[in-house]
Amino acid sequence: MDQRLTLLTLGVRDVDAARRFYLDGLGWTPTLDLPDVLFLQVAPGMVLSFFGATALAEDVGVHDAPTAQGVTLAHNVDSEGEVDAVVARAVAAGATLLKEPQRAEWGGYSGYVEDPCGVRWEVAHNPGLVVDADGAVRMGTAG
Amino acid sequence: MDQRLTLLTLGVRDVDAARRFYLDGLGWTPTLDLPDVLFLQVAPGMVLSFFGATALAEDVGVHDAPTAQGVTLAHNVDSEGEVDAVVARAVAAGATLLKEPQRAEWGGYSGYVEDPCGVRWEVAHNPGLVVDADGAVRMGTAG
Repeated sequence: MDQRLTLLTLGVRDVDAARRFYLDGLGWTPTLDLPDVLFLQVAPGMVLSFFGATALAEDVGVHDAPTAQGVTLAHNVDSEGEVDAVVARAVAAGATLLKEPQRAEWGGYSGYVEDPCGVRWEVAHNPGLVVDADGAVRMGTAG
Repeated sequence: MDQRLTLLTLGVRDVDAARRFYLDGLGWTPTLDLPDVLFLQVAPGMVLSFFGATALAEDVGVHDAPTAQGVTLAHNVDSEGEVDAVVARAVAAGATLLKEPQRAEWGGYSGYVEDPCGVRWEVAHNPGLVVDADGAVRMGTAG
């Protein structure tokens, strides 16, 4: 099993709410938009999908069908000002502010918003996380 | 807010269990391995992290601290035989089989395993999902 993630699927109550937020609100481009599932490419070779929680549980073959929880997605940007701007943009598109952007004890600056499906995004500037031109990620202590 | 995911953080009860499974069991390489959080690069520019569910909730600023649920990660491979092999490899490393690999109604072949933290992985061969050399993902009906 190689160290690779192809698809991240989040179980939600209302795929249309995801569609309104990510496509209409943020202007993202779907990789594939089917009636019951929305696919959005979010990294090279990697796709985020929003799928009904009940349908997802059925696919796994389990009986509980919780919506996505105990998970956060992070969107990193290049400056503290950009964190503020992206949080404001997400809220304008229909997200709920959970945590005002602020200095973090790990040395960066970040805030949290929740999308209309209940999915939580951290918007962060982390000087200690560097993505090289080839996509390699280096992490260390922010400084 | 650009269409980009930097970090996927899963709240778990026991980060050591993730360490034993992904590092010792599967032989993955940590991007950063700190006492309370494990970071693993899983796509160009994109990192998966395992973090204590309580610490994650504190960081978001919320009171509930569920472990990751209502979410699946998918690891796509190039053939049905490789699905079988990867599922067997994951189970040998300590995962639990949730769904035997089988033909899927969407035209591919997949199975599900659960890691020792309770995180569910689909191992799939999907002829309808193609990753171009530049990392662009194309999806359609599997054929």
